[in-house]
Amino acid sequence: MMKENFDEYVELVNEYLVDYLPRIDSKSSTLYDAMKYSLTAGGKRLRSVLLLASCEFAGGKAQTALPYACAMEYIHTYSLIHDDLPCMDNDDLRRGRPTNHIVYGEGMATLAGDGLLNSAFEVMNKDMLLYLDNLDELKKRINASYTISKGAGVRGMVAGQVSDIEAENKPCSNEMLEYIHLNKTGALITAAIRAGLYLGGADDEMMADMTEYAENLGLAYQIADDILDVIGSEEELGKKTGADQLMEKTTYVTLNGLEASKAKLHELTQNAVDAIADYYDNAEFFRDLVLMLETRTK
Amino acid sequence: MMKENFDEYVELVNEYLVDYLPRIDSKSSTLYDAMKYSLTAGGKRLRSVLLLASCEFAGGKAQTALPYACAMEYIHTYSLIHDDLPCMDNDDLRRGRPTNHIVYGEGMATLAGDGLLNSAFEVMNKDMLLYLDNLDELKKRINASYTISKGAGVRGMVAGQVSDIEAENKPCSNEMLEYIHLNKTGALITAAIRAGLYLGGADDEMMADMTEYAENLGLAYQIADDILDVIGSEEELGKKTGADQLMEKTTYVTLNGLEASKAKLHELTQNAVDAIADYYDNAEFFRDLVLMLETRTK
Repeated sequence: MMKENFDEYVELVNEYLVDYLPRIDSKSSTLYDAMKYSLTAGGKRLRSVLLLASCEFAGGKAQTALPYACAMEYIHTYSLIHDDLPCMDNDDLRRGRPTNHIVYGEGMATLAGDGLLNSAFEVMNKDMLLYLDNLDELKKRINASYTISKGAGVRGMVAGQVSDIEAENKPCSNEMLEYIHLNKTGALITAAIRAGLYLGGADDEMMADMTEYAENLGLAYQIADDILDVIGSEEELGKKTGADQLMEKTTYVTLNGLEASKAKLHELTQNAVDAIADYYDNAEFFRDLVLMLETRTK
Repeated sequence: MMKENFDEYVELVNEYLVDYLPRIDSKSSTLYDAMKYSLTAGGKRLRSVLLLASCEFAGGKAQTALPYACAMEYIHTYSLIHDDLPCMDNDDLRRGRPTNHIVYGEGMATLAGDGLLNSAFEVMNKDMLLYLDNLDELKKRINASYTISKGAGVRGMVAGQVSDIEAENKPCSNEMLEYIHLNKTGALITAAIRAGLYLGGADDEMMADMTEYAENLGLAYQIADDILDVIGSEEELGKKTGADQLMEKTTYVTLNGLEASKAKLHELTQNAVDAIADYYDNAEFFRDLVLMLETRTK
């Protein structure tokens, strides 16, 4: 049975997010603080919510998928901490608060990121240890963990981050931009959904339909973000808007203009909705989610 | 049947090390180059060799443990790349070659490290997928992977790196220094041995004895390194010696002097040898290894 709305899942994630971190020796309390600082900075929890909702959509229980949902947030958060470093995007502010390296220094921020990435796999591995006598449950978990590792890794999110820094201050085609988006944002979003489906025991057909939904959602999410960067106000988003323009960073909007971007967002939203049309009421959560993205940009 | 010597294991690791990396899209070729650059910089392969040898010591086959051995090298290499960054140890030279960020820039070096850490778990997870119908083999692999994640993580290597940067330019006690060493170097060495034992199917007694061996080896290895930093020549080691002194970094030698350090190294070596005394000829490889460390410093 799926939860009524996004916030119920967010609450569940927030309740366990810090508790699931490996217990840290008191001598490393600054590391723990630095990790917690960025973890609890009030993210939207999109990836973990998608994982939990997908697990339930496929017939599983959200509670059993929590280690994987937390792992998604650890991975997403580490990527933001490293992304904000002076050698990458050099951001001082995120979600209205000073970035990790501003508070803890660059060395500690680098290690907090490393620690979070490692913790993601530690927490998933630890969960597997609870099912060493149950082959069916192990299969689900190994598939979920592998899916997440692929999405986060050098064929996924890391590849996207690389292309992103390589594309700075250079002309960038729509094709290249889509490659960046598909990897930097899309890969982890798709991995979250697929991992949740594995954990819930989805069949091949559901896996295929939801993967198509996920890929459209991922791209829509990034384009919506680009649009908001132009039309949003600084206050509302808690970060500097127009930052992309200032950095001369190519976005879907700088390449194609605001109207074409909104049209593209609409197309992707429709594709996502169509991909899960066969599931009627059960897919309401996912339909509402992608439609909300489009609304945010109006 | 264990191999005759260290170099045979090194050859096996080097043969597969790059091949086991996830296939990377041609658009990310610089990332791939950066990862390969540090992976193939001629490390000693201590951790991967220990894993393979421990697997065989427990009765397993080295070939089946290769994904985990490569994962150890990915993790060790990522930690070196991040350690060398200007915000950490700020080293320009490692193993006689310019460090990763000198060649590829800081942003790419950070991502190459992230990519390697992620690849470690990706390659182990992928290996598990091959055994989804074999609960016994899965147990070994999940235990090995969890052991590695713990040793590399916030209660292991990352904790050691944190304490290391926090201890810089500050008075440091022997107790604190041992904490740093146990975590920064020792945790991953112990994890390598224990992971290998799991993969080979070791019993509890062997696990306990070899863990004691590993913990003494890990500390001995670091103290031997500190001694070499003082007595070694720059040419032989391919990195600047006396660097620790120059950075006013506390080492076992700066705290206790050369003679006391050699005495401590001798004591740890004896402890390690004693821990595996019951295994007679079978443990020759491990006995020779720790004795060799002591010899290097004379």
